[in-house]
Amino acid sequence: MPADGGPGSPFSATALGGGHGLHVTLRALRRLTDAVTAVVTVGDDGGSSGRIRRELDILPLGDLRMALDALAERDHLGPADPGTARRLFEHRFGGSGALAGHAVGNLVLAGLLDVLGDPVAALDEAGRMLGVRGRVLPMSPLPVDLEADVTGLGLSESQQSEDDVAHRIRGQVAVATTPGQVRQVRLVPRRPKACAEAVEAIRTADVVTLGPGSWFTSVMPHLLVPELFTALTETEARRVLVLNLAPQPGETAGFSPEQHLDALAEHAPRLRLDVVIADPDAVPEPDRLRRGAEAFGATTLFTAVGESGGAPRHDPVALAGALREAAGSAASRDRVPDDEWDARVETWGRAGRRRFGGGDVFFTPTRDTYRHEEEDLRWP
Amino acid sequence: MPADGGPGSPFSATALGGGHGLHVTLRALRRLTDAVTAVVTVGDDGGSSGRIRRELDILPLGDLRMALDALAERDHLGPADPGTARRLFEHRFGGSGALAGHAVGNLVLAGLLDVLGDPVAALDEAGRMLGVRGRVLPMSPLPVDLEADVTGLGLSESQQSEDDVAHRIRGQVAVATTPGQVRQVRLVPRRPKACAEAVEAIRTADVVTLGPGSWFTSVMPHLLVPELFTALTETEARRVLVLNLAPQPGETAGFSPEQHLDALAEHAPRLRLDVVIADPDAVPEPDRLRRGAEAFGATTLFTAVGESGGAPRHDPVALAGALREAAGSAASRDRVPDDEWDARVETWGRAGRRRFGGGDVFFTPTRDTYRHEEEDLRWP
Repeated sequence: MPADGGPGSPFSATALGGGHGLHVTLRALRRLTDAVTAVVTVGDDGGSSGRIRRELDILPLGDLRMALDALAERDHLGPADPGTARRLFEHRFGGSGALAGHAVGNLVLAGLLDVLGDPVAALDEAGRMLGVRGRVLPMSPLPVDLEADVTGLGLSESQQSEDDVAHRIRGQVAVATTPGQVRQVRLVPRRPKACAEAVEAIRTADVVTLGPGSWFTSVMPHLLVPELFTALTETEARRVLVLNLAPQPGETAGFSPEQHLDALAEHAPRLRLDVVIADPDAVPEPDRLRRGAEAFGATTLFTAVGESGGAPRHDPVALAGALREAAGSAASRDRVPDDEWDARVETWGRAGRRRFGGGDVFFTPTRDTYRHEEEDLRWP
Repeated sequence: MPADGGPGSPFSATALGGGHGLHVTLRALRRLTDAVTAVVTVGDDGGSSGRIRRELDILPLGDLRMALDALAERDHLGPADPGTARRLFEHRFGGSGALAGHAVGNLVLAGLLDVLGDPVAALDEAGRMLGVRGRVLPMSPLPVDLEADVTGLGLSESQQSEDDVAHRIRGQVAVATTPGQVRQVRLVPRRPKACAEAVEAIRTADVVTLGPGSWFTSVMPHLLVPELFTALTETEARRVLVLNLAPQPGETAGFSPEQHLDALAEHAPRLRLDVVIADPDAVPEPDRLRRGAEAFGATTLFTAVGESGGAPRHDPVALAGALREAAGSAASRDRVPDDEWDARVETWGRAGRRRFGGGDVFFTPTRDTYRHEEEDLRWP
């Protein structure tokens, strides 16, 4: 059931991410096209997903379930009413027993995984139950763990001022909620196998989106799966990054918009983007962001995409408008040729190196475009 | 979604029961008609059903799930493949954690109950997911408990010979597995509300079946729900009892076929039946059974309905043949008029009374048809 367009679909889109950020992106994309594929991170170890993952040794299912929900039919009135199926999937058991807090959809997905043996088949089947338009895929057929080097944890009195003593922490929840500064994330295993259908969906899409979302735990992991990253560098698709509207307490506390870009570059130096979507209200220094985006080869699309009312959440309708514009505008861009791009990255790649407590951590340097004005800019 | 016949359905059938006995009856009936309604006992307190019942304070779901399974489409090849849905519902989680042993279908039904608030709506929705032909209903919208007076438990040395010291035990599992002799079962609450749709299904069916199944815990409970029993006495439907092929260790250990009938009469003196289906291999004294059936106003249909191979299980194909014959033959019977029947029951109703340890227990006497040859026949 590939999410191919059909007559009504102006373009096909593949969205990379997880959690609420991916949910809103998918809700936006489904306004534009039926040909949407979600590629979902599989590092979660918290909540219902984490409990099921540990108990049954399977993929974390919550982010996959949420992506299905975002693409589920909302107005179908046929006999097998997907409205009820959607409510069922999102329903959480109450009480204080063994089932409390479990989303029914997670249990259904776990059952389908057991029965069908293959996560893609299980997700396709769940998609049919929910009347999903499009497709939801895991970034990897096997679960991964997140591991991060974090500084500033102040684990003892004597260390509190030693901001650059890095500690290795493990687990998505631990990374997402760390009181320290995340310096680098890795996946365990280091080079996880990609979901083949996800690779294909990146290679064949007209538009690929990254973000918004938890930067280190939902957006970054895809870039650390070698086959996905390669597909992302090689695809003909417009690569659109949607920036967050605010720093996230824990993993990106205090980050400026351009520091979000820096973090991507540190982890994926050869990453190229075509459009960066940012809400002007969330960007204190637009020129700086614009130059940061240019370092990825991207133009910046400043447009209001936040909900009115002040909560730092994307509005799916506004985001749909921005994504449509990004998809269209990108079509006419001239891309930097591959060899020239590689040469640029080589230049940036004369990596700085800092020694942290726990071991050697390699950083790519602050990129050329920044260096002249912010010699001391270090990420984060 | 009433299970009305349609052009291809020669008659409508309502099957009362629970567990494996009901499952095989439904598999037999679905060979004959699409208009099948299952009315399922709701007293289970064991296994996955019992755990969910206790944790979420809802109906026990396992027998309902099994009834859905029996009526689920088996050969549908459409896009929303019910074959997978069936496998999903019947799949049980493994391992040794909080989910171990839970049937996924029980969890789905529990979620639907939460989401829709009404068991009939939840079962109809699950029926749609599974491509069920027909309908599955609970005998009561609320769970019940089974309670039994049991003798011969030998709870202390001094009591071991006192067979008629009755102890009250509670819970379906306790009753079904008691090492003593079940003398009487009751429901708690004593007069549970019936599921309105189940009452209607009994009143409007062409055929109503009871049994086979665990006699005291799956077959008897329906007779103890006042509205269901009234509907059963008043319906125009052919009332067909399918006898078990063997006594069941625990609740009916050592029972003869006619003792199964006696037990029904003790609990529901005014019960009338039209046909009793028995396998000749399971009836040592056919004349005795025939006379026992006549006491209910029923003819006995002796026909091979057991699986070949010796296991005391009904073969759904053979049982379908017997049920078709029972449905047809019953059409031509002359029933005893209601007032004459009531007079008969009055005669039988000069109840014997025995005092057991725990309290007064009323038994209807051995019925007229037996008395002349077995003065001392007491049930069991």
